[in-house]
Amino acid sequence: MSSFIIRGDICTSTDKNTILTRENSYVVCKNGVCQGVFTEIPEPYRDLPLQDDTGKLVMPGMVDLHIHAPQYAYRGLGMDMELLSWLDHYAFPEEAKYRDLDYAEKAYDIFTNAVKHSATTRMAVFGTLHREATELLMDKMEQTGIVSCVGKLNMDRNSPDTLREGSARESIAETERFLRETLTRYHNTYPIVTPRFVPSCTDECMEGIGKLSEQYGVCVQSHLSENPGEIAWVRELCPDTAFYAEAYNRFGLFGKPQKAIMAHCVYSSDEEIALMKENGVFIAHCPASNMNVASGIAPIRKYLDLGLRVGLGSDVAGGQTESLFTAMTEALQVSKLYWRIVDNSCQPLSVDEAFYMATKGGGEFFGKVGAFEEGFEFDAIVIDDSRLPHPQELSVRERLERAIYLSGDIKALTAKYCRGKQIL
Amino acid sequence: MSSFIIRGDICTSTDKNTILTRENSYVVCKNGVCQGVFTEIPEPYRDLPLQDDTGKLVMPGMVDLHIHAPQYAYRGLGMDMELLSWLDHYAFPEEAKYRDLDYAEKAYDIFTNAVKHSATTRMAVFGTLHREATELLMDKMEQTGIVSCVGKLNMDRNSPDTLREGSARESIAETERFLRETLTRYHNTYPIVTPRFVPSCTDECMEGIGKLSEQYGVCVQSHLSENPGEIAWVRELCPDTAFYAEAYNRFGLFGKPQKAIMAHCVYSSDEEIALMKENGVFIAHCPASNMNVASGIAPIRKYLDLGLRVGLGSDVAGGQTESLFTAMTEALQVSKLYWRIVDNSCQPLSVDEAFYMATKGGGEFFGKVGAFEEGFEFDAIVIDDSRLPHPQELSVRERLERAIYLSGDIKALTAKYCRGKQIL
Repeated sequence: MSSFIIRGDICTSTDKNTILTRENSYVVCKNGVCQGVFTEIPEPYRDLPLQDDTGKLVMPGMVDLHIHAPQYAYRGLGMDMELLSWLDHYAFPEEAKYRDLDYAEKAYDIFTNAVKHSATTRMAVFGTLHREATELLMDKMEQTGIVSCVGKLNMDRNSPDTLREGSARESIAETERFLRETLTRYHNTYPIVTPRFVPSCTDECMEGIGKLSEQYGVCVQSHLSENPGEIAWVRELCPDTAFYAEAYNRFGLFGKPQKAIMAHCVYSSDEEIALMKENGVFIAHCPASNMNVASGIAPIRKYLDLGLRVGLGSDVAGGQTESLFTAMTEALQVSKLYWRIVDNSCQPLSVDEAFYMATKGGGEFFGKVGAFEEGFEFDAIVIDDSRLPHPQELSVRERLERAIYLSGDIKALTAKYCRGKQIL
Repeated sequence: MSSFIIRGDICTSTDKNTILTRENSYVVCKNGVCQGVFTEIPEPYRDLPLQDDTGKLVMPGMVDLHIHAPQYAYRGLGMDMELLSWLDHYAFPEEAKYRDLDYAEKAYDIFTNAVKHSATTRMAVFGTLHREATELLMDKMEQTGIVSCVGKLNMDRNSPDTLREGSARESIAETERFLRETLTRYHNTYPIVTPRFVPSCTDECMEGIGKLSEQYGVCVQSHLSENPGEIAWVRELCPDTAFYAEAYNRFGLFGKPQKAIMAHCVYSSDEEIALMKENGVFIAHCPASNMNVASGIAPIRKYLDLGLRVGLGSDVAGGQTESLFTAMTEALQVSKLYWRIVDNSCQPLSVDEAFYMATKGGGEFFGKVGAFEEGFEFDAIVIDDSRLPHPQELSVRERLERAIYLSGDIKALTAKYCRGKQIL
């Protein structure tokens, strides 16, 4: 069934500054495509089946623009170091285990089961450098019904022996095989070109995968300007680039010719920001991770005001949880600290902006996704917030705001739809 | 039953830098008092009933040093302003409703039901200025089995007409009546003298309640140096004090003669810090609130290193949740931002320190509380973390760390004990 109507208390972003809320209203899905939000069911849709979620919050599914599947196993662990040491001590040894497909099977079952039951309907996922384990992950992602891009990582330098590809050629060849094998294998799961970050990829590797991205028409995801130590290292490694993003851009890995997601952008220079804007790069803002591994606070107010494309990322396991509700709360919280401590000309984010980033802002990476607008792919979640009792009257808008801040206390996802199909 | 043994995976702070963990071990409670942690049950206790929580985490109950009961109804709402505007627009109008005992009944039922089911076993609670509603709150707190101090607020200036006492005399008289009526009424619930904060209390009022605190031997709680606007205002209001804390100290409301909790201390000067140390004042660190109402980050590393007494506060509704697990995570997170952004000579907090503050650090306010040590009052919680599956082996220490960071995903409190009595 991909044509139906949901009745409930509807919430959707119209633009980044506006959440539209409609109590006791209807959102219509026809052949997997949203027809809009209505206070009465319009004549042409009168015969569609009605899902009655009266009194519940109905909103677009959440979009997670940055998550590491193999790090899920140790989320909430070992966050006593900053980025580069954390990678060496925790992330790399854990990821090295995914050479073993039995371990990958067990770990990716846990991961995909968790995200299936989360509020997320779209994801951009990092795997490991292991092609086979990453294809296994894609098989399992496909089972969840979530739409995702999943990347086999490229790592051919500055990585431990247990987690490094033998050469640029090997890295490129494995990537090409990965793309060929997965490009049309699934309905909802797509490969994505994924240089881990500049320090772990040689120029030769970058050049090769940049060509593959263009040749196969496949998007790109990576990390950018996350941490001062990392940025200084990139400067050493790439003396002929003026700033970090150039190290991707010169190889066609920065939003042109294919769309690209760059996670973090905590310390992007003005030139880098200008290039992100010019190339339409998607920024994955990951506030939990930026706190947990002591990176800092990204100036998201500035990016939004400049019209850059910004979504949210859980960045598990730099972030401790896959919950995008938590990510929204944390985005709001760190924006207030940024205003207070770093730059009081940068106003804190609003709830509208946080919700926009988690839905329509990130959704744009996947096309017409993340809002209940005519012509948008129909992704939705239903939240029963009645287990959060309150003595006073609350508007739908207030209930949504509370659900965002109290995600951890609510745990009341009662239905989830992706591309018009109910998957939970 | 107040004599028994719990078997499980035991976690307890020994000092602020050390969490002791013991797998498959025993913690013994005799007549409500902890006898210690043992790997085998010692001979004298062999006949005590055994509660088998094998495979679960058993730890001291959490201590919340700062929470506003009447603000619980609008937690997660209206956090788009900083402190003083937030008080005027949200907190004060909500609190004014507690003049109506029907509203108080409904709202305090929700509050006490929530904290009963939380991991918290000790609380320092702000009520409103209304004596009757606050006594109603105490009746309900007593029912939870949690040990708490509950304060009727003093507010006789700079507050709206709907939430201000008629005069200092009235405020003092109502406080005295409150103390007399509640001092010995309950087993687990105690009154506490609670000037809201300096801007809302005249000198005459402060002087009067300072005397009451001494006369009745009752502790004190208030707010201190939370926000730059508030601090500037206190400076105007109290031109004859050198720093904020003096406005409490000169009236005997700052740790001498009675113990005192001061919430926030984000911007305490060196003189203020020295006075806190001298008087043994308890600092309630409330990281969520300090983010949500854009106050800043308190320099907790400095306070701990100086040997000050520090516990955690949820500060609902400046904070969005009553979960002390969330407060621990946020304390860790903001300490990393403090190191990165404000002062890189202040090392981030460790998990050990966060756990210490949430248990033994805050517990000290209540006496020998917050650790599984011989002679300590027996407060405990049991957490079933088995619903967080993992592909790798994890030590008890790692499971505790994960439970702290993933509080929102876990929701697996299976038992709670307070003063040796099982209350959940």
